[in-house]
Order: sequence, then structure tokens, then C-alpha cells
Amino acid sequence: MKLQSSGQTVGVVGGGQLGRMLGEAAAPLGIELVVSDPTPDAPAAPVVREQIVGEFDDEGTLRELCDRADVLTFEIELADPDALTRVAKETGVPVHPHPETLRTIQDKLVQKRRLREAGVPVPAFRAVDSVGALYGALDELGYPAMLKAREGGYDGRGNVPIETRADVEEAFEAIDGPAMAEEFVEFERELAVMGCLGKGQTDIFPVTETIHEAEILRETVSPARTSEAVRKRVRSVANDVLGVMSGRGTYGIELFETTDGGILLNEIAPRPHNSGHWTIEGCHTSQFEQHLRAVTGLPLGSTTRRAPTAIKNILGDGPERSEATLAGVESTLARNRASLHWYGKQEVYKLRKMGHVTTVGTTEQTPGSVLEDARTATESLSFRS
Amino acid sequence: MKLQSSGQTVGVVGGGQLGRMLGEAAAPLGIELVVSDPTPDAPAAPVVREQIVGEFDDEGTLRELCDRADVLTFEIELADPDALTRVAKETGVPVHPHPETLRTIQDKLVQKRRLREAGVPVPAFRAVDSVGALYGALDELGYPAMLKAREGGYDGRGNVPIETRADVEEAFEAIDGPAMAEEFVEFERELAVMGCLGKGQTDIFPVTETIHEAEILRETVSPARTSEAVRKRVRSVANDVLGVMSGRGTYGIELFETTDGGILLNEIAPRPHNSGHWTIEGCHTSQFEQHLRAVTGLPLGSTTRRAPTAIKNILGDGPERSEATLAGVESTLARNRASLHWYGKQEVYKLRKMGHVTTVGTTEQTPGSVLEDARTATESLSFRS
Repeated sequence: MKLQSSGQTVGVVGGGQLGRMLGEAAAPLGIELVVSDPTPDAPAAPVVREQIVGEFDDEGTLRELCDRADVLTFEIELADPDALTRVAKETGVPVHPHPETLRTIQDKLVQKRRLREAGVPVPAFRAVDSVGALYGALDELGYPAMLKAREGGYDGRGNVPIETRADVEEAFEAIDGPAMAEEFVEFERELAVMGCLGKGQTDIFPVTETIHEAEILRETVSPARTSEAVRKRVRSVANDVLGVMSGRGTYGIELFETTDGGILLNEIAPRPHNSGHWTIEGCHTSQFEQHLRAVTGLPLGSTTRRAPTAIKNILGDGPERSEATLAGVESTLARNRASLHWYGKQEVYKLRKMGHVTTVGTTEQTPGSVLEDARTATESLSFRS
Repeated sequence: MKLQSSGQTVGVVGGGQLGRMLGEAAAPLGIELVVSDPTPDAPAAPVVREQIVGEFDDEGTLRELCDRADVLTFEIELADPDALTRVAKETGVPVHPHPETLRTIQDKLVQKRRLREAGVPVPAFRAVDSVGALYGALDELGYPAMLKAREGGYDGRGNVPIETRADVEEAFEAIDGPAMAEEFVEFERELAVMGCLGKGQTDIFPVTETIHEAEILRETVSPARTSEAVRKRVRSVANDVLGVMSGRGTYGIELFETTDGGILLNEIAPRPHNSGHWTIEGCHTSQFEQHLRAVTGLPLGSTTRRAPTAIKNILGDGPERSEATLAGVESTLARNRASLHWYGKQEVYKLRKMGHVTTVGTTEQTPGSVLEDARTATESLSFRS
């Protein structure tokens, strides 16, 4: 490859925080980004060459991206595989990951079926398209269980826990569309790993522990506080998952470590993922740089972990939508080895992901102690003005 | 401090590679940059909110920067202290570092006098404003010696070595303006250290060894391959240098380790500096993030070195100005723990700084071996198309 002053341009569907962090990673590689997002002045806008304002699935917008880009990718699952396929064919601009992979992942039922076929361990699940079918599925899966919308859910939206038979009808109404029921997994902890398909290369980042509350990721710590045997099994499952994926890019792979030491796949994201944000400081190559290397066909970088690393998300805590004003930043930045990542969102609302704080430990520190550092570093932060 | 979604905006005079790397560091802190540069689509342009096209010393341009910025800084010494002072007074937008410090540093004679007064060890020097004065100065300083333009030199331009009396007249003509003669320093190695003045804080990055050829920085390695006693002395000199500086920001401090183990100050830059580029990967906080923290009044970050780190500059090698096209990037990126930093310059010419490659070692690796890695990682690179 020759790196020209004008470089390669990557078109990104979506200009949220993932697009912003892709933008931060692009310039050193000589890569420029153009993003599309329906919200004017999206988080990525200040750090990319250009934002095109348009819906994620609008073909005119995708064509505008292709006019400027050498390759197209997406940072949000709301991208439309059909539109991507048509525009890619029409313009000759390749899309990574492959739109078919996006389609498979978008439908949680299709995703799980495809993975199960490939021998990836997944929780027991059933398709449900009526209350009757849901009752039937739960007779087999048992209570409690999880009801999941097949499409469109994220950050806990679209997932409804069912404790007893009494919850069934309300849960089905809440989902209001095609769904799948899944057995409730008794897990010891949740794990995640970023995998990457490059040009003739596969790479897997170090295994991370993820801590959710009410289905929303709050904290991660790497290495995960588990055994090397479990980590090895996670890497093996991740390899199998990548075998099912098509097209280059970074994939977020979320898993359960069950109470009996087994591994079950939870979900996949065909893009950089919150559980990999720690790699910006924690690994030699971040998930964002790796994604850009992958989709542009450059060699993948080394993903060795530098030191134990934790993050804590900064989530909106106000009761109403309001202008985003974060207080207490000085105390965070004054902490040793703490880094702030602010996403530049204009408005805050309850549980919206507004930023994150990373703490990198010394090589002697335990993961738990680095996680404590991240908690301490964010104690001062508040959206109350 | 409250971090608003609209954040703080920093106006930067200069949009070259330093402005670009400031831009890369700004977004995570919620800081936006606006840069001014006379070259349209300057290296920083793709990663900052806006570039204003205008000369570095143009007051109209500076006023435009101030209209958008909460604080002004500069990444090039060609900024004009008088214009900065006037515009800052008129608009109320503070400038960091202080324009008086810029003025002191711009004139190498004034810089050296000021440092000598403050007890900083400097090579012997004399002001020279005529050939006669130069002969007289060299009678005292001895041969060989260095003739330096008082203003405007960089990357070796404006520095003329004088070997014997036969070189004197030609050297004086080459400088063609106010100059200073300086004794030739017999050095064991060259060292550099980035110092930072924050809001009520001072911090010094780990000491680095710099390797020049024909007055142009080619490589750096940190830690410097010298004794802890020398490093300690460097930090002490750097502290004295920072005592002379006024206004917040990161300062590049270049020094000689003399053959008898002494330390002499060579030059200062009131801005991030090529000798500090290794801190992007090599330290927890980079010189660029530290500069932004300093000028915006945020707490300084930790500057612990993660591991031995080296860089090698990518310099233009063609005989003529031509479109910049770098070949061999894949081999560089395929190297373990090697990072590319491409500056996005449109044109290449001989010895122009076009980018750099960083290699981070393991904690067990010697600095020399990490430097070898950087050399190997850049072997494939060439501007020949």
C-alpha cells in the first residue's frame, strides 16, 4: 500500500461516540473519516472530515458517503443491510463487515440459530410470536427467563425479564413484536472479548470482565477475574464466533461464565463495543485503530495488554432531558493514571452513555484494585448543575 | 469546572503536525480546537472543528480565533507576541504560554541571556552583528563554533557550523542578519525533556535521548542511555528553565550531556516538541494532552513512562517538491508494537518531517533494542513511487 497525503477515506454509518473514537484513532494512520448521522453536529463531527446529516438507512446518504469513501463501515446496528448491499453494488465501494453479517446479527433469533449451528455454546432459546407460544416456550425453558425483541434492542431496551407465569402477558405486550425467549442463565460473571477479522488475519483482544446493572454496561475490568482455563475457553469460543462472521472489522462478543464454569455466548456486535473501550489506554492497539486497520486492509496491530485496566461509564442521572453539563471533572483528571473520554453529546437523560473514565494500573496491581480506582475517579462526577 | 457538551474551545496558532496531534488528544477531554494556518487544508484540518486560513501573525485571523476560543495557544514560534498581546487584551481571551515567553524564546540571544541570568548552564556565546564582531567572538570562543541566526531558525535552518577562520565570512553571509556565536560543545549525547507548567502545578516528563543528523532530529529513545545522576541533573535544569517561563503549557527543553558528564542547555521550544512525540504511546499522558490540560487549566495527568519507547522520524527523501506518497506502510504496521503517525502533508521535499513511527518495548527490553525496533520498522518506508 502507498499512503498518500490524501490517504484512505472511511465512510462510517453513525456518528455517535463510537464514530468519535474511530475519528480519534484515524488521523495517526493517515485515514480520514466521513460519517453519516441524522443528528446534526453528532459526537463524531468535531473530529472527522465531514458529517453528512441523514438517516442511517437512507440510500441517498449512503451514496454521498460512498462518493467520498474508499470503504464503508458502520458503528451502529441500525444500518440497513439491504440499502448497504444495493449502494455497495452500485458504487463499487466495499462494505465491512459484510451486510449479511449485519443482517444475521440484527435479528437475535437468526444470530443465535446461526451460532448454534456453528457449534458455539448458547443459552437455550425459542422463537415466540404469540402469547401462547411464549407460554409454551417457558414450559420448556422454565422460570425465570428472558424475553428479547428480535430486532432493535440495545442497552437493555428490548429485553424483558420474566420471573413467573404472572409476568408473561405484560412482557409480551412490552416487546410488541417478533421475539425470542431465552433461558435465564445463572452466571458467575459476565465476560466480553473483542475479536477482529483483518485481511487474512484474525486477532482476539485480552478477555474482559463486564459489570452490568439493569442490563446496561457500567464497568469493565481486564484481565477478567477468572481462571486462565476460562479465559482460554473464551478465546476458543470467540474464534468460533469469528468463523461465522463475514467481512473485516472488530466484533464485540459478550459471554456468560456460568456458575459451573461453562461459557455461553450472550450477544455479538459487528463493530467496536463498550466492553472494548479499555483498549484505548490498556492495549498497544485500540479496538478503534484495529477496526480501521481491518476495514482498510492494513495489517492488524498488537493487542497485548499493557497493564490491568478498568473503565467506568459516565451515565446520565437526571430525571429529564436537559443540556449536558458535567461537574467534578477536575477531581477525575487529578487522579493518577485516570483518563477521561467525553462523548460530546449535547443532551443528557437518565442512563444515557455520556462518556467513560479509564484507569490503568501498575503491572503489580490486581484487577479489582484498578476497578476500585475507576470507581474512585468517577465519584466526583455529576450532571447536577 | 463543569464540562459542557459544547466544552472548552482552544484556539491554536498553527495547524501543522503539532496542531494535528493536539487535535487527536483534544476530543477525549471534551475540548474542541480551532486552528489558524496560512496553508489551506493544513495537517490539523481534518481532526479539528475548524481551520481559519490566515497568516500566523495576522491580527484579523487572531481575532477570528478569539471569537471562537476560550483560550489561545500556539504550536509554532512564528506566532507574533505583539499581535497576540494586543488581541488578547482587546478580546479578553488569555494566551498560554505568555507572549512574553514566546518573545524571549524567539530571539536565541535573549533566550540564552535570560537563562544564564537564572543560573541555567548554557554554552558560552557572544552576540555578533558584523563580520568583525564574529572574528572577535571566535577569538574568545575558539574553533570550531556555531553561528546561529537570532530569529526564525528551525530544523537546522539558521544554524551554520564554523570549522576554521576560512569559514567565517561565508557563514556570516549565510545567516544574513542578527546572529550569535556559540562555543562548539563536545557532547557525549543529546538529551531532551518535556516540562509542563499547569495551573499551580509543574511536571516533568521522563528524560529522552535525541539523535540528530545535520541538525535535524531523526530518532529519540526514552529512557536516555545515560546514568541516573545525569537524568537527575537534567530534571533539575528543566525545573530551573520552567522557572524562567511564564504562562501555562508544555515546553520542549533540549540539552547536551557533555563528554565530562555536565549538562548544558541547548534550546527551548514553548510548545510540544518532536522530542516528546514518544509520549503518545510511551507515557500515560502525552505531551499533547498535557499541553491541553495546562492551557485550559485542568489538572495535569500522570507522566509515568509505560515502557522503553523509541521513535524514528519519517523524513522526505526526494530531490524535488512532489506529491507525498509513502510506500511500504504495511511492513511498518505489521511490526509488533509499532505505531504510525502520518502528518497528512500534501507535499514532500527533502528532509521535511512527514510523520514518525513509534515502537514501545517490553519493560525488559533495553532502550537500544527498542530503538533498533524503530529502525527496523521504518526500513520499508520510501517516498519513491
